[in-house]
Amino acid sequence: MTAFTNTRTVRIEWGDCDPAGIIFYPTYFKIFDNATAALFEAALGMTKFAYLKAYDFAGFPLVDTRAKFMKPTRFGDDVVVESTITFGTASFTVQHKISLNGEICVEATEKRVWIVREAGRIKSQTIPETVRAKFN
Amino acid sequence: MTAFTNTRTVRIEWGDCDPAGIIFYPTYFKIFDNATAALFEAALGMTKFAYLKAYDFAGFPLVDTRAKFMKPTRFGDDVVVESTITFGTASFTVQHKISLNGEICVEATEKRVWIVREAGRIKSQTIPETVRAKFN
Amino acid sequence: MTAFTNTRTVRIEWGDCDPAGIIFYPTYFKIFDNATAALFEAALGMTKFAYLKAYDFAGFPLVDTRAKFMKPTRFGDDVVVESTITFGTASFTVQHKISLNGEICVEATEKRVWIVREAGRIKSQTIPETVRAKFN
Amino acid sequence: MTAFTNTRTVRIEWGDCDPAGIIFYPTYFKIFDNATAALFEAALGMTKFAYLKAYDFAGFPLVDTRAKFMKPTRFGDDVVVESTITFGTASFTVQHKISLNGEICVEATEKRVWIVREAGRIKSQTIPETVRAKFN
Repeated sequence: MTAFTNTRTVRIEWGDCDPAGIIFYPTYFKIFDNATAALFEAALGMTKFAYLKAYDFAGFPLVDTRAKFMKPTRFGDDVVVESTITFGTASFTVQHKISLNGEICVEATEKRVWIVREAGRIKSQTIPETVRAKFN
Repeated sequence: MTAFTNTRTVRIEWGDCDPAGIIFYPTYFKIFDNATAALFEAALGMTKFAYLKAYDFAGFPLVDTRAKFMKPTRFGDDVVVESTITFGTASFTVQHKISLNGEICVEATEKRVWIVREAGRIKSQTIPETVRAKFN
Repeated sequence: MTAFTNTRTVRIEWGDCDPAGIIFYPTYFKIFDNATAALFEAALGMTKFAYLKAYDFAGFPLVDTRAKFMKPTRFGDDVVVESTITFGTASFTVQHKISLNGEICVEATEKRVWIVREAGRIKSQTIPETVRAKFN
Repeated sequence: MTAFTNTRTVRIEWGDCDPAGIIFYPTYFKIFDNATAALFEAALGMTKFAYLKAYDFAGFPLVDTRAKFMKPTRFGDDVVVESTITFGTASFTVQHKISLNGEICVEATEKRVWIVREAGRIKSQTIPETVRAKFN
């Protein structure tokens, strides 16, 4: 099993927060989606726009996710997002940890499938070995 | 010149609002985008998914917009969105008015172009007469 | 244990979808957040803006959520969201099921805590009996 | 009249784009809102969370905005956002220019008012001289 980690810092913005003054939780899932795209960018050395073309696939939609929210964050916070990927055959799992000043705020796991478009429909496919190899 | 009006009611949600407790203004532009899609749905008798296929085009992206915000709205408000379209040749203009309890909260104008995809690139095109005719 | 169900129909919009042409999954969590607010509105007979005041609390942020995505949805789809609440002491669980044409697309569970604001900080609190009673 | 400019680079993400594969235009208004917050952060030397407290005000909601969209952007693009502020008495204007590889994609102007909260309601107020002075 291959494991690969990418870490980045994300600013929580005013518009990411709700009238309680803390982050509106669906924003975290956008942060996770961006983090997974960034993890592939780090490994493959190109943006998502480029790697969708280079490896001729349609994306990696979610099939399952779980998140635990331990500590709220708010606008002005620069959180650290640490994302670790583990590959299956036609799917992969990413664990995301969001922390602020060294304290864990959110822990999440997501399972995604590698999809291709065939005759206008999407279907899952084995992740190419040329992709996996880049994560070693 | 053809003019056609569509009116709908939209609920402002908790997550549409920011830490000031009022609507986060980019939400209004989502409401306008949905309202323009709904206006075409009302005239053409099918959803955007269906009319993009039926009239073989790629959408109607914005080229210009202006909005005035007179009165804030907040979560729990059911606002009335009145949208009026006027057609040009390859473009059209929609005027949106958002009101709450009879008072105008926002007035906006948007200009959009009718686009098609050609060899992977998007370009503007004359709006089909069969589309316009449905707005009479 | 009290259980209470609320059902509503939600339109998936163009702007809720991503370049794969299907719903961008964080949108589902907005739909769930709106659905939980609507569930309380159905039971308490007033909007979230009104019930936050009437019951003098600061909201019900998430502590845990899990979602399974079985079938994608796309713009133009009118999905049915069925939400069932079960109460704990200072927390409650909501199960959301999203279906399209009778087929389940998403199943999710969320655990939320009842919070109040005290000296500028938020803390959890026992859910008032007057609130619970409305769900019977 | 004081003029002050702040420039930053913003990544357009997959989830910021719609089924046409280009940016969903309301995303630009989030980018503008973040850019205006960042402009104040650059001048005042603290985050929005800190300066709302330090200068005891409730925010700077929009009253008017205009945007022209010349060239679409898409996921993977790192756009440059250049924001220039000009102060009025109780309001200010920000001009935003978004460019990609040296080409202008969007030009926008926004007018915002400085607001305070008084007895639960929001009202505009003269911008403090201590704030303005930081922009010289």
